[in-house]
Amino acid sequence: MHKVIFDTDPGVDDAMALLFLHRHPEIDLLGVTTVFGNVPLVLTTRNAQFLHREWNISAPISTGAASTIDPSRRDDRAASVVHGADGLGNIGVPHTVDWPLDSRPAYQFIIETVRANPGEVTLIAVGRMTNLALALRADPAIAGLVKEVIVMGGAFDMAGNVTPVAEANIHGDPEAADILFTAPWKVTIVGLNVTMKTIMSADYLAEMVKSGENSLRLLSDLSQYYIDFYKSRVGLAGMAVHDSTACVYLVRPDLFTVRGGPVRVVCGGIADGATIQAPDSGRRFIGTPWDGQPSQWVCTGVRPDDVLGVIRAALVDGRHVIAV
Amino acid sequence: MHKVIFDTDPGVDDAMALLFLHRHPEIDLLGVTTVFGNVPLVLTTRNAQFLHREWNISAPISTGAASTIDPSRRDDRAASVVHGADGLGNIGVPHTVDWPLDSRPAYQFIIETVRANPGEVTLIAVGRMTNLALALRADPAIAGLVKEVIVMGGAFDMAGNVTPVAEANIHGDPEAADILFTAPWKVTIVGLNVTMKTIMSADYLAEMVKSGENSLRLLSDLSQYYIDFYKSRVGLAGMAVHDSTACVYLVRPDLFTVRGGPVRVVCGGIADGATIQAPDSGRRFIGTPWDGQPSQWVCTGVRPDDVLGVIRAALVDGRHVIAV
Repeated sequence: MHKVIFDTDPGVDDAMALLFLHRHPEIDLLGVTTVFGNVPLVLTTRNAQFLHREWNISAPISTGAASTIDPSRRDDRAASVVHGADGLGNIGVPHTVDWPLDSRPAYQFIIETVRANPGEVTLIAVGRMTNLALALRADPAIAGLVKEVIVMGGAFDMAGNVTPVAEANIHGDPEAADILFTAPWKVTIVGLNVTMKTIMSADYLAEMVKSGENSLRLLSDLSQYYIDFYKSRVGLAGMAVHDSTACVYLVRPDLFTVRGGPVRVVCGGIADGATIQAPDSGRRFIGTPWDGQPSQWVCTGVRPDDVLGVIRAALVDGRHVIAV
Repeated sequence: MHKVIFDTDPGVDDAMALLFLHRHPEIDLLGVTTVFGNVPLVLTTRNAQFLHREWNISAPISTGAASTIDPSRRDDRAASVVHGADGLGNIGVPHTVDWPLDSRPAYQFIIETVRANPGEVTLIAVGRMTNLALALRADPAIAGLVKEVIVMGGAFDMAGNVTPVAEANIHGDPEAADILFTAPWKVTIVGLNVTMKTIMSADYLAEMVKSGENSLRLLSDLSQYYIDFYKSRVGLAGMAVHDSTACVYLVRPDLFTVRGGPVRVVCGGIADGATIQAPDSGRRFIGTPWDGQPSQWVCTGVRPDDVLGVIRAALVDGRHVIAV
């Protein structure tokens, strides 16, 4: 069993990823930590509570960062145009949801859970990486106690999705991402290089929901706004399942190709939030900010149909599925 | 006939490009402007004089910038490891060469030559873009009087050659390159995307020199150090003919594929000197530094064998060839 803490800003594709982690038979979801991002923290936390209640997910929810790790930086690019004003496709999520929250802040929840399960916990971060950076700052030794870190974020040698060079999760807190990528732990970065190739069509989603039990209907309902965005604004015939793709990496890394090398994040200037890797296999440079930084893994290739199949199997036939 | 001003920092591959421009039957080389870069200005100018004398090139030489357009920036990355301490492969260029220099500084030579040939001059810049930026600063109206600008520089959506993200000509004066790319003229950027695919093997060079007349031997002699660099440090079986490739674009643009869109240069920070295009065909962003900038052309594909063939034909059978 893969023990997982899911750091998330639900968010439409976050919702699918959450259900995937909850239902996949080889995953033990130890906790969910929320962070600002797709919508403000108060909404991402409320949405996590809502999804836990609707899907009867017992993993604890811990509330995380409401803003960037560098207080002098503003991030006002909430992605309501992508996820809806409520973050879940404007389906009418209640203003407040009665569902328990862990009393600890997310970074402390992460530290204590990692220390209680040394060498066993995988952190999957699919929002701004602020909570993980705060945990590292408070307790740097956790880097040696975490099994691995999987991040959805970044765009390597390609265009971004919020600027011509930056991806949203990184652009929303570049300093936090740079702290995370330069820490001495194993990070695998599942960025737009692979997630923009992993497109679930509206038909695929509809068929999947039809095959599954009733609770999958919520997933379909909250995804329609997001699908419309991808159709009208990006020209895609479906939705990029960014966060679920990162979760699939946990159980099926064989479906991805990766490239090793130190990764740094541009902080400030016109390339703010750009992710740049110095590949271990590439030309060597001397005296650059990549020198001496740990080598991390960047996903460069993916088998999208197989990834979709893994998602479908967990959602339709996984654990915690109530008979139709 | 293409009227050309060649802005250059010889430089080994600059030398080949200079001879190409001199000999190509459809090119009228109006002048050569020198700039610091591969080696300091005093050497690039001396090398231009040397090459003009050896190859009997009558085009005037005008001395350009010795340092970056922003005086607060230092560029101390002279590429003697690539081009030799003398900039021409350590072949023993005389300390001084008796060959005339135009009395005007390069930026003034550019302005006056462009104004004397309105709508007819192509500027080909294969070094730091300082001279062209200085010309624009002194006389912005030349942007509307130049036929086109062809630049060798940059690395788009790929690794650089002086840092993991920056190419040498841009990295050496990013502010100048950004001025050039955002001016209202037509710029085509021939960067590492295509020049690192356009590799002339030592055998190809040797065969070419054997087929041509005596003066080609100098080209072979001065290229050996550069070939050794590419073999030992980059792992290439030949030399990237960066600057000649940019010159071939002038006469055979059909050998390249291009992508349109505004281009900005990162100035400062870890991505200093990175070139970023917002493709016209790509996702649209609002409120970025690419907004409202002119669309330029970035070469994304090339037919290398054909480019080498065009170079060979001009060098071996072009104008000004003395019978063997």
